[in-house]
Amino acid sequence: MTSDVVALLRAALGDRVDTSPASRNHARADKSGHAADGTPLAVVHAASVHDVQETLRIASATGTPVVTRGAATGLAGGANTGAGEIALSLRAMDRILEVRPDDLLAVVEPGILNADLDRALTAQGLWWPPDPASREISTVGGNIATGAGGLLCAKYGVVRDCVLALDVVLADGRLLQLGHRSVKGVTGLDLTALMIGSEGTLGVIVGATLKLRRRIAGETRTLTATFPGVRDAAVASAAVTASDVQPAIMELMDAASLAAVHAHLALPLPARGQAQLTIQTDGPSAAADADAIAAVLAAAGGTVRVAADGTEAEQLWRVRRSMHPAMETLGTTLIEDVSVPRSALPAMFDEITRVEEAYGLTIPTVCHAGDGNLHPNFVFAGSVVPDAVWAAADEIFRAALRLGGTLTGEHGIGVLKSRWLRDELGDDQWELQRQIARVFDPAGILNPGKVFAT
Amino acid sequence: MTSDVVALLRAALGDRVDTSPASRNHARADKSGHAADGTPLAVVHAASVHDVQETLRIASATGTPVVTRGAATGLAGGANTGAGEIALSLRAMDRILEVRPDDLLAVVEPGILNADLDRALTAQGLWWPPDPASREISTVGGNIATGAGGLLCAKYGVVRDCVLALDVVLADGRLLQLGHRSVKGVTGLDLTALMIGSEGTLGVIVGATLKLRRRIAGETRTLTATFPGVRDAAVASAAVTASDVQPAIMELMDAASLAAVHAHLALPLPARGQAQLTIQTDGPSAAADADAIAAVLAAAGGTVRVAADGTEAEQLWRVRRSMHPAMETLGTTLIEDVSVPRSALPAMFDEITRVEEAYGLTIPTVCHAGDGNLHPNFVFAGSVVPDAVWAAADEIFRAALRLGGTLTGEHGIGVLKSRWLRDELGDDQWELQRQIARVFDPAGILNPGKVFAT
Repeated sequence: MTSDVVALLRAALGDRVDTSPASRNHARADKSGHAADGTPLAVVHAASVHDVQETLRIASATGTPVVTRGAATGLAGGANTGAGEIALSLRAMDRILEVRPDDLLAVVEPGILNADLDRALTAQGLWWPPDPASREISTVGGNIATGAGGLLCAKYGVVRDCVLALDVVLADGRLLQLGHRSVKGVTGLDLTALMIGSEGTLGVIVGATLKLRRRIAGETRTLTATFPGVRDAAVASAAVTASDVQPAIMELMDAASLAAVHAHLALPLPARGQAQLTIQTDGPSAAADADAIAAVLAAAGGTVRVAADGTEAEQLWRVRRSMHPAMETLGTTLIEDVSVPRSALPAMFDEITRVEEAYGLTIPTVCHAGDGNLHPNFVFAGSVVPDAVWAAADEIFRAALRLGGTLTGEHGIGVLKSRWLRDELGDDQWELQRQIARVFDPAGILNPGKVFAT
Repeated sequence: MTSDVVALLRAALGDRVDTSPASRNHARADKSGHAADGTPLAVVHAASVHDVQETLRIASATGTPVVTRGAATGLAGGANTGAGEIALSLRAMDRILEVRPDDLLAVVEPGILNADLDRALTAQGLWWPPDPASREISTVGGNIATGAGGLLCAKYGVVRDCVLALDVVLADGRLLQLGHRSVKGVTGLDLTALMIGSEGTLGVIVGATLKLRRRIAGETRTLTATFPGVRDAAVASAAVTASDVQPAIMELMDAASLAAVHAHLALPLPARGQAQLTIQTDGPSAAADADAIAAVLAAAGGTVRVAADGTEAEQLWRVRRSMHPAMETLGTTLIEDVSVPRSALPAMFDEITRVEEAYGLTIPTVCHAGDGNLHPNFVFAGSVVPDAVWAAADEIFRAALRLGGTLTGEHGIGVLKSRWLRDELGDDQWELQRQIARVFDPAGILNPGKVFAT
């Protein structure tokens, strides 16, 4: 049976069917630190919509599960492919098919990297705003399929706000065109929106019509403010949100994060307990906005430093950007992703402190404070998440829900969070969502065991 | 059976069940000019979520169709209620439950008028951006249920971009809470987005958590430009879109519209064939933006007039705002709603001219040129749309689809456009959408005969 599937794939797709042990092993994991049990049957390197359709026709005919993959930078295990499954890689479908400055749109294949697309648009003064931290290594298709966020979301929106139309191959190989090229359109149900963040459970995104912006003119401004503790920093960030100035980026690092990064970069260690906000403003009022925000932060008790020039700004941002490398030096990291209303950030940090004390853990946390999305990091030895870490994470998830937030702001449910999905959705909504997924994929061959697994 | 349903409703809901002939007759129609066949069983004036749940439990138990209504300002017949149906009015559920300036959100009941909500937010410096032309008389719930647009969409987005969470009562009376209060969130499928524009076919929206903006500071600027013909005006509007300045509002009136309004307002008649753009800029760069746009319009052959002050601006906008009253003096109006990519506006006006000539009709057309949404108006005598008008409308719909656009930019499918739905979606997507609706409403009691009717 297994060899039949591979033989059928090879007959249809030739050497785009890769059964090398290295490729199959690579397809077991994303960047979550978690890997699937077993090894997939094959990796299909699709080069065209037709290849995707052929793969799904064979998968449907043989009842074989298909896991769609881009650059495998996900953090929830959503693209991990295991025993008996086909890994369908769209990474090679990376063409820009059309750019229309007059309509502020681009049509692309899903495998193009976010940063590569954005660089290609620069010459025409255009901008692809969704900016996950992984933008240099993550694909546009993966960005859409996970509903990824990023740093600029409070001012410039999330990926859901930036997609006009999608071409989607269904489980049985049929191709659907969802959406339209116009700014407005309300014909029937908004399946384009439904596909965004569906994590490979509804269909395979093989093309996307993206809503672009013009590049923001002028220089940006960067400032930091340090605070005696993380709660003070959270209160200050909420004060910025409640002011009438909109930062482009506002990032918060707690004491454990800041200390770890300073150690990693061999910078002087910060004062014990010290937390930091790093903020960028942009557009025609960038300088005035930075001054206004500096005043809010100072009034909130912050020690403010405004970068004098681009070089100094770069030094300030280097600290925030070094968070993940610093964590990696400490052990295996489980990066969580809760999101809360921005006014609830101080309360959420209180909850994290409570969980740290209850479990005797240090949970270094960075936060997209502009939009209320927190990334608590659990660091441990070995490759298996300890039970105590899951128990602590469970308490953090429940706290976020109590505060009106969500399990996952931008990483998705994948395999790592599916056991908490019912807690957020409730049984009725969970069942309804599962039935909707079954309309798209009656036999359940698309990314089984993810999202709705339990 | 009929009397049973009404008796059950009355036993549960008392005098909120209205069977007066006047109310029942009123519920047959919206503002589309079309009315349902027959008269509904009753109008339920729901005052609470509980009332809605009770109504739907009785409807489910008795297999009675339910049509949800707000202020009945729709233009596609989506809320028209006919024989054997319950009209479920949410207009009385009009409370603002919560406003959070620190989180830029509000929680409201669905029956509040868009403009009433916005006025209530003003004191706190907040703004509810979705601005259908009907904002003074249309409800927030209707705005969401139709996925309505408005004038400011190119710069400030459509209603889909402004909703964080929805409370929804399903066909069987169960209450679901979709979405969350945080800016970001990707837990499971985005059913909040799916509800937006679903036109009463998936559930009843009984509460909404809305994403607000801060009010735009500073004065606006208004300018008009006249052109020898509509094509010149369309080319000029596309040139503005392709420039690096973003108008807040950009409206186009063709010659027939402009002449009708001038006659209606007793203004001097414009030159034969003359078309007009009316543009507003806002924000800190409003004056500079207006100057830049004036230069683009002059270079495109326009005769530009910049309003010297608010009084003159008001005079200029009065012309655009008098379009519907002017049409009403001419006869019965069928307002169409196609949307195309902005670069295709000249081609779309060419198509309208072609259809006018082929059918010997005048089709006065206004257009939200900032986002590519056109409203061709068909004016006729009597209350029944003549076959020739539908034939001409059909040609306009198909032209919009050929140009990469859509049947409906902001009014919805309702009953008037359901016969064209398959043309845009294709059979496969139409069937998929219908199956999704059946997951929410297995017995098909929610707004039957609308959207997926044929």
